[in-house]
Amino acid sequence: MGTPSSSSVVDLIVSKRDGGELSPAQLQRLIAQFMRGQITDYQMSAWLMAVFFRGLSLEETVVLTEAMLRSGRQLEHRGNDRPKVDKHSTGGVGDKISLCLAPLVAACGVTVPMISGRGLGHTGGTLDKLEAIPGYQTRLTAAKFESIVRRVGVSIIGQTAQLAPADARLYALRDVTGSVPSRPLITASILSKKLAAGLDALVMDVKVGHGAFMSDRKSARALGGLLRSVGQRLGLPVCGLLTDMSSPIGTSIGNALEVREAIEVLQDAGPADTRELTLALGVEMLRASGAEPHAGRARQRLERALSSGAGAERFERMIAAHGGDARVVAEPSRLPHARHHATVLSPRSGYVSSIDALALGELSVHLGAGRTRADQDVDPRVGIELSARVGSWVERGEPLARLHLASARRAAESQAATLRAFGWSERRPRLRSRVLERFG
Amino acid sequence: MGTPSSSSVVDLIVSKRDGGELSPAQLQRLIAQFMRGQITDYQMSAWLMAVFFRGLSLEETVVLTEAMLRSGRQLEHRGNDRPKVDKHSTGGVGDKISLCLAPLVAACGVTVPMISGRGLGHTGGTLDKLEAIPGYQTRLTAAKFESIVRRVGVSIIGQTAQLAPADARLYALRDVTGSVPSRPLITASILSKKLAAGLDALVMDVKVGHGAFMSDRKSARALGGLLRSVGQRLGLPVCGLLTDMSSPIGTSIGNALEVREAIEVLQDAGPADTRELTLALGVEMLRASGAEPHAGRARQRLERALSSGAGAERFERMIAAHGGDARVVAEPSRLPHARHHATVLSPRSGYVSSIDALALGELSVHLGAGRTRADQDVDPRVGIELSARVGSWVERGEPLARLHLASARRAAESQAATLRAFGWSERRPRLRSRVLERFG
Repeated sequence: MGTPSSSSVVDLIVSKRDGGELSPAQLQRLIAQFMRGQITDYQMSAWLMAVFFRGLSLEETVVLTEAMLRSGRQLEHRGNDRPKVDKHSTGGVGDKISLCLAPLVAACGVTVPMISGRGLGHTGGTLDKLEAIPGYQTRLTAAKFESIVRRVGVSIIGQTAQLAPADARLYALRDVTGSVPSRPLITASILSKKLAAGLDALVMDVKVGHGAFMSDRKSARALGGLLRSVGQRLGLPVCGLLTDMSSPIGTSIGNALEVREAIEVLQDAGPADTRELTLALGVEMLRASGAEPHAGRARQRLERALSSGAGAERFERMIAAHGGDARVVAEPSRLPHARHHATVLSPRSGYVSSIDALALGELSVHLGAGRTRADQDVDPRVGIELSARVGSWVERGEPLARLHLASARRAAESQAATLRAFGWSERRPRLRSRVLERFG
Repeated sequence: MGTPSSSSVVDLIVSKRDGGELSPAQLQRLIAQFMRGQITDYQMSAWLMAVFFRGLSLEETVVLTEAMLRSGRQLEHRGNDRPKVDKHSTGGVGDKISLCLAPLVAACGVTVPMISGRGLGHTGGTLDKLEAIPGYQTRLTAAKFESIVRRVGVSIIGQTAQLAPADARLYALRDVTGSVPSRPLITASILSKKLAAGLDALVMDVKVGHGAFMSDRKSARALGGLLRSVGQRLGLPVCGLLTDMSSPIGTSIGNALEVREAIEVLQDAGPADTRELTLALGVEMLRASGAEPHAGRARQRLERALSSGAGAERFERMIAAHGGDARVVAEPSRLPHARHHATVLSPRSGYVSSIDALALGELSVHLGAGRTRADQDVDPRVGIELSARVGSWVERGEPLARLHLASARRAAESQAATLRAFGWSERRPRLRSRVLERFG
């Protein structure tokens, strides 16, 4: 006989709670009714927590992703039939790769319509970094975004309310209710947005290690595999790299500092690992776009775009198109500066064997470079500049890092926290590539 | 160093999600901030779902129960120093035991300040049954409740906003977000209310079987044990019975029909199992109160209160004190009647081997006797009267049940559903007592 409530939202929650699989119609209704306000936030947050524990099948993840995509419009990039490829990172510390990678790849003929996020917790966000450039606008309409993408070949903006609005609402809810680290939910969140942006292919940078959301390679590999499988089902080829996130990327953490480092990379300089990650992900993007299927040749093209300045020039054009001061590329001193600085000196001689990315990510939030709640502002000026890297030999009394501070208050505390992030060894540590493996 | 959010509500959710134990201070803050609106419903529902999966330790359950208790006031029953004992059932089908038990025990000198609930899903609720009595008020202030308890020795009301308001809010949230069936949450919900009512002891009727929330004896035993342990820590002795809930209790399901059956029991008649459960739980209440520690003598006192009419008379006084028409006890025809009836005839001869309590509970909801959402009204008149019981020999064409209907529409469908609830055998089934075991 059944009760009248047998198809209610409570049943969808209970079904998932008890390990059941929801039908496509049920999942589509879940998202549609949530967006219409017929399913409350407290019911959705309970469902999301049940998904955290029970997971979603591949089929469920595909249907959920599609339902989230369909909650908004999908960009068509009319009149722009060049291959459109984006790169997405699962979040790290000192991860400024998008800033140099997107214009560099665009300079090689691949269109990059990049929709980025803000920093949260110990990981930074590309939008916060771009906004350290005076005048740079990250909030544009979809039409303006498409227009810049067509004209400049690259644009980086924030999520708009028109693209996958269900994802924005679900993510905001997950963020405050503890259901962020769920593989199928992460997958649906990333792919619904990327599909809405009208991409032809997506390159993932799945971070692994202490400073990433996933600390073990097995989970990272599983996320990569799920992204690839769901992408395949929805017509979006996904490939990517698993990369090491145990120590901060490059030598800077903090918004303006990271823009400066990205500019250095585009000027054919900068820290070796930042450059290496940029090139490795660039190769994937060129291959995924079909522009250059051969890895070696793709790398050569990218290196040429660095040495010729074509990448840097493309970055200037993108900044200008977004209303920003493009002179920062030639004159990085135009970027905002902190008023106060403190140097962290080494208390010992030895090899630096590790630098704790999570600890420095949290310190950078504490300094004001990041946020712990989505509604907080960030200070573009502050951050950490590393003088020593993993593998460096440091003499006692030599500088390990320079802190860029909003005020001199609590400098000693931050210096101590920086010091604690360093691990030491007597023997030279074995240096490994940040690129752990490829998938797709 | 830590981030500013290290003690935020998200951390409490994440900690429980990952199997951690919350400190007393954290749990107290969780409840206090929830009641002040500083923790949202969507965060609480996510936390509750995490508790569903991860459970709570004994210590956490104790602290949560106490925090919920302290969200409101606690009755003191000033000037009433007789032992105060309540009985609480985990919910069944045809469970009208409170209606006859409470006045019967009061007639034996035990004070019964009973705070009951409404029916939800396939299980009925004592308040809905009492409200089938014309005029009976279940919504009284705490002061009025204490006054009736003192004067009459027994009162049954609904939960008031003054007693354990955190439980009311949490239960309403669990009900619509799929986290009802959690042992520690059930325990905290029951005990916070019972402690607020100012009891000296609590007798539990933990239902086991197809028609109960717990279908296996092991879970029921675990719930009984947890209620006892938490009660002990908070100064409330808890004992009780595990009782069989595979077939409906007695011969009636539906509000007015069940009041009528309770009156029959108080008049020393009624179905054997309803009478047996009433006496068994009454013995526990008399023993728990200290009024009569010897089980055999307790049973004699209860039987005398049935045969003398003292229990029935106490029921009349309670009804009158609540503004109800006490004449229903002597003249049950004064209870509301359904206009339409349909008899279910047996399609075969044989022994009735089972009657599916869940199926008939759901049918009674469908007929209007219960509700699937907390905001629905119930129809006091409708329900199911069983002519045959488990163990009955029935000839083909004899009546199995009589349906009391609000309209003649869909009578055939309900007759068919009733029939489907009956199981048959050629041999006489072994009849077992409803009382499975005792705890405490």
